[in-house]
Amino acid sequence: MLSLQQFQEVVKNHFENTNLDKEPKNLYAPISYILELGGKRIRPVLTLMSTAVFDGDYKQALPAATAIEVFHNFSLIHDDIMDDAPLRRGKPTVHEKWNVNTGILSGDAMLILAYQYFENYKPEIFQKLAKLFSKTALEVCEGQQYDVDFETRTNVTIPEYLKMIEYKTAVLLGAAMKMGAIVAETSEENGNLIYDFGLNLGIAFQLQDDYLDAFGNPETFGKQVGGDIIENKKTYLFLKAMEFATANDKQQLAHLFSIQLADNVEKIEAAKKIFVESGASEATKKAIANYTLKAFETLEKMAIDGEKKAILKAFGENLMGRNV
Amino acid sequence: MLSLQQFQEVVKNHFENTNLDKEPKNLYAPISYILELGGKRIRPVLTLMSTAVFDGDYKQALPAATAIEVFHNFSLIHDDIMDDAPLRRGKPTVHEKWNVNTGILSGDAMLILAYQYFENYKPEIFQKLAKLFSKTALEVCEGQQYDVDFETRTNVTIPEYLKMIEYKTAVLLGAAMKMGAIVAETSEENGNLIYDFGLNLGIAFQLQDDYLDAFGNPETFGKQVGGDIIENKKTYLFLKAMEFATANDKQQLAHLFSIQLADNVEKIEAAKKIFVESGASEATKKAIANYTLKAFETLEKMAIDGEKKAILKAFGENLMGRNV
Repeated sequence: MLSLQQFQEVVKNHFENTNLDKEPKNLYAPISYILELGGKRIRPVLTLMSTAVFDGDYKQALPAATAIEVFHNFSLIHDDIMDDAPLRRGKPTVHEKWNVNTGILSGDAMLILAYQYFENYKPEIFQKLAKLFSKTALEVCEGQQYDVDFETRTNVTIPEYLKMIEYKTAVLLGAAMKMGAIVAETSEENGNLIYDFGLNLGIAFQLQDDYLDAFGNPETFGKQVGGDIIENKKTYLFLKAMEFATANDKQQLAHLFSIQLADNVEKIEAAKKIFVESGASEATKKAIANYTLKAFETLEKMAIDGEKKAILKAFGENLMGRNV
Repeated sequence: MLSLQQFQEVVKNHFENTNLDKEPKNLYAPISYILELGGKRIRPVLTLMSTAVFDGDYKQALPAATAIEVFHNFSLIHDDIMDDAPLRRGKPTVHEKWNVNTGILSGDAMLILAYQYFENYKPEIFQKLAKLFSKTALEVCEGQQYDVDFETRTNVTIPEYLKMIEYKTAVLLGAAMKMGAIVAETSEENGNLIYDFGLNLGIAFQLQDDYLDAFGNPETFGKQVGGDIIENKKTYLFLKAMEFATANDKQQLAHLFSIQLADNVEKIEAAKKIFVESGASEATKKAIANYTLKAFETLEKMAIDGEKKAILKAFGENLMGRNV
């Protein structure tokens, strides 16, 4: 089996050769643009690894892996419009470089293109992949809608928040892995276990993102540290703090998260102080560790040999080990 | 076999029971809203009729027919955002009633839902339907992009225009009918012939729309007569006039189509005069008749009995016979 680095290399080369030199140019150029912007390519790597882990030929999984990455980038284009985001991976977003209408239409085309990649498989495999894909894609839309809804709600609960990040982020990691299992034609049980592995790792990953947004190293985090606090985002850290903090701190935090300031340095420091003193910061770290552990426990149940479990575990540790 | 009116009744009842009472409400309520706005339901009726024509059970075709209508309404939501249209079927458009972000996200969900309706079929049928659907959906996006591109081009040719309306409108009618054939499991040849029937009827229908936009009866047309002229749209009428008119009239028409006026009565009258005098109006009527005839000739080649051909022809005549 290839190493993690080798799989990453395969995926990297694959997307460097994204050739969408089709007409009309104004529809396809934005698609090539976002696909060539790079990114970590986590999802397609997961699909290839999963096929290999279940003794399939990873090359067979390339169309499914491409579908997942194309879908992920479709969701980035449409999310960036909704968030009015100017930059993606340090470059102008599609709707900034072109315009909103182009972003909508090229995004739509990408969603359809994603389905077309499954046409490379025989009917039974095609149907399994497309069904899992539709279910997952719809959950991602639902997760995005919950995220939007939460912006204007003040009574979001922890279970609601966990469901939102599960739908918005984690199900796609689970599906990426299960697709690899479907391509390898392994047992339904293995498929479900690897889905759970990806899902729990995905939740852990998103919670870590929340944590690092406040406590990450500004030099290596890649995004603006404190960005969630500036935007008054009700992350796991915030919700836990509102659960644990003293009445006074709760009131202060609620106030901080209801204002927009020109200078955010004090706001960020004040919020972080409450996150730490309330125990919310510790609780978040614990939740991250729990979901990671849950993912690794799922691995143990799988009918694959130890070497393969080790590779999946290495991927999980690599993903979660960013000390940024 | 049911009559055209009976098929229309089946479809009407089917969409009155669209029950999408799912969470999150802000994602699904706009979907129910647009699906319940009504419309002519041409596409799902075509699918059911096509299945029945090829001796299938039309009830088996309901999921495919629903997929087509859900997709059509997805494209309306996103097109209305792009066109900044305030009204659809006399009611506020989704992005007006909610907002642009809701329109984008609910539209995305509808595109995915459309694929899910195919899950009701066995793998071979599923794959055939989904492949045809993806190809068609992508062509609709390409057609929409060409339409956008043409707004800022002054050298659009008649073949380019015909390709645009074929992609944007006609392929979906062809696909709606071919899906009916796929569900009936008739021959590949019948499937292709009924596709051509729908495609040519679709082109004739769109050309007629262009014609009626200028020359229709304001009391029955449903849209503002002269709307294309007001918006400087390069329709078939305009392009033919630019081909046939005298040098003087060409110059006048080009000028008329480069300005925006507060009072459009004179502009509309002047443009229509050139459409008639140049022969563009006659040429458009001829093209409509030609594409309709082409559709009816395809019918003759089909291996189905005369009664069934008569029903399809009646549908075509009904669709094209609007003297509005």
